[in-house]
Amino acid sequence: MLSLESDYTKGAHKKILERLCEINMEPQPGYGSDMYCEQAGEKIKAACGCHDADVFFMTGGTQTNALIIDSMTEPYEGVVAADSGHVSVHEAGAVEFTGHKVLTIPGNCGKIQADRLRNCLEDFWKDENHEHMVFPGMVYLSHPTEFGTLYSLKELEEISGICREYQIPLYLDGARLGYGLMSQDTNVSLEDIARLCDVFYIGGTKVGALFGEAAVFTKKNTPKHFVTRIKQHGALLAKGWLTGVQFDVLFTDGLYFEISKKAVNLAQKIKEGFAQRGYEFFIDSPTNQQFIVLENGEMEQLRKKVRFSFWEKIDDSHTAVRFATSWATKESEIRELFKILDEVRS
Amino acid sequence: MLSLESDYTKGAHKKILERLCEINMEPQPGYGSDMYCEQAGEKIKAACGCHDADVFFMTGGTQTNALIIDSMTEPYEGVVAADSGHVSVHEAGAVEFTGHKVLTIPGNCGKIQADRLRNCLEDFWKDENHEHMVFPGMVYLSHPTEFGTLYSLKELEEISGICREYQIPLYLDGARLGYGLMSQDTNVSLEDIARLCDVFYIGGTKVGALFGEAAVFTKKNTPKHFVTRIKQHGALLAKGWLTGVQFDVLFTDGLYFEISKKAVNLAQKIKEGFAQRGYEFFIDSPTNQQFIVLENGEMEQLRKKVRFSFWEKIDDSHTAVRFATSWATKESEIRELFKILDEVRS
Amino acid sequence: MLSLESDYTKGAHKKILERLCEINMEPQPGYGSDMYCEQAGEKIKAACGCHDADVFFMTGGTQTNALIIDSMTEPYEGVVAADSGHVSVHEAGAVEFTGHKVLTIPGNCGKIQADRLRNCLEDFWKDENHEHMVFPGMVYLSHPTEFGTLYSLKELEEISGICREYQIPLYLDGARLGYGLMSQDTNVSLEDIARLCDVFYIGGTKVGALFGEAAVFTKKNTPKHFVTRIKQHGALLAKGWLTGVQFDVLFTDGLYFEISKKAVNLAQKIKEGFAQRGYEFFIDSPTNQQFIVLENGEMEQLRKKVRFSFWEKIDDSHTAVRFATSWATKESEIRELFKILDEVRS
Amino acid sequence: MLSLESDYTKGAHKKILERLCEINMEPQPGYGSDMYCEQAGEKIKAACGCHDADVFFMTGGTQTNALIIDSMTEPYEGVVAADSGHVSVHEAGAVEFTGHKVLTIPGNCGKIQADRLRNCLEDFWKDENHEHMVFPGMVYLSHPTEFGTLYSLKELEEISGICREYQIPLYLDGARLGYGLMSQDTNVSLEDIARLCDVFYIGGTKVGALFGEAAVFTKKNTPKHFVTRIKQHGALLAKGWLTGVQFDVLFTDGLYFEISKKAVNLAQKIKEGFAQRGYEFFIDSPTNQQFIVLENGEMEQLRKKVRFSFWEKIDDSHTAVRFATSWATKESEIRELFKILDEVRS
Repeated sequence: MLSLESDYTKGAHKKILERLCEINMEPQPGYGSDMYCEQAGEKIKAACGCHDADVFFMTGGTQTNALIIDSMTEPYEGVVAADSGHVSVHEAGAVEFTGHKVLTIPGNCGKIQADRLRNCLEDFWKDENHEHMVFPGMVYLSHPTEFGTLYSLKELEEISGICREYQIPLYLDGARLGYGLMSQDTNVSLEDIARLCDVFYIGGTKVGALFGEAAVFTKKNTPKHFVTRIKQHGALLAKGWLTGVQFDVLFTDGLYFEISKKAVNLAQKIKEGFAQRGYEFFIDSPTNQQFIVLENGEMEQLRKKVRFSFWEKIDDSHTAVRFATSWATKESEIRELFKILDEVRS
Repeated sequence: MLSLESDYTKGAHKKILERLCEINMEPQPGYGSDMYCEQAGEKIKAACGCHDADVFFMTGGTQTNALIIDSMTEPYEGVVAADSGHVSVHEAGAVEFTGHKVLTIPGNCGKIQADRLRNCLEDFWKDENHEHMVFPGMVYLSHPTEFGTLYSLKELEEISGICREYQIPLYLDGARLGYGLMSQDTNVSLEDIARLCDVFYIGGTKVGALFGEAAVFTKKNTPKHFVTRIKQHGALLAKGWLTGVQFDVLFTDGLYFEISKKAVNLAQKIKEGFAQRGYEFFIDSPTNQQFIVLENGEMEQLRKKVRFSFWEKIDDSHTAVRFATSWATKESEIRELFKILDEVRS
Repeated sequence: MLSLESDYTKGAHKKILERLCEINMEPQPGYGSDMYCEQAGEKIKAACGCHDADVFFMTGGTQTNALIIDSMTEPYEGVVAADSGHVSVHEAGAVEFTGHKVLTIPGNCGKIQADRLRNCLEDFWKDENHEHMVFPGMVYLSHPTEFGTLYSLKELEEISGICREYQIPLYLDGARLGYGLMSQDTNVSLEDIARLCDVFYIGGTKVGALFGEAAVFTKKNTPKHFVTRIKQHGALLAKGWLTGVQFDVLFTDGLYFEISKKAVNLAQKIKEGFAQRGYEFFIDSPTNQQFIVLENGEMEQLRKKVRFSFWEKIDDSHTAVRFATSWATKESEIRELFKILDEVRS
Repeated sequence: MLSLESDYTKGAHKKILERLCEINMEPQPGYGSDMYCEQAGEKIKAACGCHDADVFFMTGGTQTNALIIDSMTEPYEGVVAADSGHVSVHEAGAVEFTGHKVLTIPGNCGKIQADRLRNCLEDFWKDENHEHMVFPGMVYLSHPTEFGTLYSLKELEEISGICREYQIPLYLDGARLGYGLMSQDTNVSLEDIARLCDVFYIGGTKVGALFGEAAVFTKKNTPKHFVTRIKQHGALLAKGWLTGVQFDVLFTDGLYFEISKKAVNLAQKIKEGFAQRGYEFFIDSPTNQQFIVLENGEMEQLRKKVRFSFWEKIDDSHTAVRFATSWATKESEIRELFKILDEVRS
């Protein structure tokens, strides 16, 4: 069975496993105070072109989002997100669990539009009753978005400018950041993100690691006693070096970028393959997730040999589905996909 | 440098690493719905002699404690713990962060005493103003305790009986459970714990795993929609099988017990070694943590070649320190410890 | 200066003040355990035709909303509300502060539409990923809504039916309930509300009392140890009889309904007065709040002699404003309003 | 039946009721933005000798405590209190509900001792693991304490000095502040409190008002957007002037002090009466609460004609009980008490 249903179905890049095996019996200090976390942090800061950043490692995306939003907003503040934002929809209310509201604005293919953001902030501050409302205290973006789409540099600059004007931090959820940075259709670099955002995270779980996300505070703005906040959230790993060493490997010799690029290129082959066969796309994605509209009968046939994700019902006879590549996808798997598809179609 | 400062300084038992490497490229469903979690759960249930238990895997102890306490108590309830309990002292208020008070009673070498527990519960319910107080809604034990001590079967039975009388769940924090079960001085088995507790966790992080704790609900009492609660706490690992496969290995052919036994035996050698040399013990521990009173000058000498933990200042010239063995400790390291000690003393 | 800006600018109906003065030196037991709370509860239950209801008194609307929603939903559940719902917009995130998400659906003039509600619930339960989402655990309505509009009996029955089908409680925020029940354009009675809702509150602050809201649980569904929850929320008044005695007066000889009716009738005179003069209405309200579109110049003139509320900018030269009557409004004030308006217009 | 069981069994001083009646039909702006709140604030600031203080009004003590502690501590901080402190014992966990731990130290007759406080803070900061612990972020005192005792000026100065040394705010719960300030055995003035504390509240509920507490921030340290925090806690009264006007009356011509003095003097008569008759005191209180040890049979006899509070069982045949005076107590009631007692004893 071909597995293209998501980008977190397999373990880790073999270099990571090798390294974990190598250092297995080296005693390490706990809770992220080890040299691997230190070293990985240095490499990430170099890759970001931001040498006075602070880097912390968490185990998963929802955890990282709740922790960062909770610790960078005041208790009377919420976080502005697109209505399709992961924090708003698919995190079981982890942000609200910490007492903060997610303030949604209608997204455009998963993206926040600068003018809508500006209106939202302007309206809040002009409202006579704003003391009775949740203050917009942060802006949350995902890049790539939940729909695989990307912000252009200009869009990011506009949003960042608005955040600075209103003096609220811009936070970028980079669960799939590698696949965004290595897209052929992006003009946004990691340096740009570090420059334009106040905090962001570089996803490891979906990009080559067993688990782990690297949170980067770029403006000397790490929340006070952040380690205590991590602990309080139940997010402090005793053997913190496990995340450190994984990111150390990923950010050595550009491995993170290399494996991301491979995945995105294979996703583009999926895109081309479906396009050539005349399929409609649910959304036009330049990254590792591809959203295709399938006729239901064909979908059921395909499902017997390929795992993909249900996305959305289109009409009574059509469904949008998602195919995702990852660092672990092989070119042969893409060939296999289209071989199976062509059999189904014939 | 000899490393005896804690039981979480090294990676994982080699069988775990081997297994992780073997299955690395097998695609797995996410969030703990995989066959390894299933399989590990079955083995744990068998080891507990409790076939209708439910087993869930988390990544760390504080996370597990906060999740279980929060989801098994009503919002108006707190958890009763010894004043030295980990949830009360060393979890950065993670329990209070979820809105629940930790209600402390004075512990005896880290243990709750049945009569004090009974008084606490009796006093609460007799108090005319108890509606203005936090209800005692759960009892929290650690076994081994933070001082390495163990409950006897009779003590556990008494506490469990009181909990049933007052109809509140008994929760046992088993961060170091293996080292308790394999002590030469215990008459408490895993089956006893499963029978007497309503929920407990089997620690992996400190007993052979890279990370991971297995929460066991023994009385068909898993909180409703518990997966959503895990997600809400930011504790749901995308690649849940990573914990499943580790516990699967640990609970195959009794590995968990075998490595625990080895560690406890080595700890007893530490105990004997210090006893023979006439040292005083800060506390009498039958498990993998040994608490010795050192003269400060000697302590400083020893520290140059051995890592151990500061525990408590005794007086101006003496300090209690902790030496911990683990699944990873070698017999040669204990010999080395005393070789160094004897050099220091001579 | 004529005061029509809101319905909470004046103290209490004189019968309430008289009664407070009369009983001032009678010693009472605290925290709502007094005979006035008891007596008021009985009268409210009779008025609701629901003799096994439980009635509790709080001091304000936001407090009541947060308390009821928090204590009647599970921690993994949120409350469904219209996007304009008071709990969603104007309570400073008090619901999220207790950990629960407000799940919004687009409202129609402030009202939830049954078909949208059904879709929302259906979509949730059909979604394969709903375990990663906030469960819709309650439905919140305001009646009258924030726009002064009312649900018809048929609408309420449909919504109530959907809630029962999905086994979630229906909660009605009756901050201005009297003004809804006494509208000439309603076919909904207090008995209907008690029958169709699982919990609701009867607003006192805006309807004749100094302060106070009466929460009514209609289905033997009072949350366990609710007094403790009230205390925990900081909402338990030491001298609870102060709310009890006010509601006792309001529900003696139909005072609550009588003063509400008078206010609604005066609001209809405002409506007629503006209609006769050819004004446009921002929204068609059958209750005590009237929303009129004014030309900006005229608005500024009027503002010199009358206090009203800004509601919404319509275009560059027009603004929607609100005039509110209350139990305290006099017929002469309405005549004065139009006298002033006619002067402004001439 | 004589009512001496507590100080919140009766309504308000008649001047307050008169004033409420007088202004009943004056329209007021909402949410505490009215002139009565303004005026009362000014008078309180004058009485405190602290002209740049900020004053806010809440409805009850638990609400005020939770709000002030929550908004003046960081999320990783808790509040240090005596183990008998009201916030620790009798507020149903309202502080923990907001996510903050109450860190207790053993009290001495309800009071925090300076040396214990210093040790607690010193120990925390010296602890190598303090990042895994709840930070002591505020000190909470009650004055009078729950046992009616008072801090001396020297004690307050010492505690205040320690707080400043550790840069954490000192908060004083003045639910019964009047009865403390007017004690014959105090050398602490309201100015002292304003000078030595960072925030405190002046209790109205127990000292002449229907309800209401006045929070005073003395060091230009009002939490940012505090009105929004009040709203978020469900503590913002729509008709905020109700509290303002009550404190305006209480702080006009020294009424607050006058009625407090009368109550304390009557309490001293209770003390003398019991002392003359040879009774033992459970605690030596110089304020309006008197704690007497009664023989159980006598207690039961007395209970038939006098209401008092059970405090604590002393032994099988004796019980400590509390008699409380208040602004509403009459001298004749004290005479009546002893007349009844003497009948019982004869």
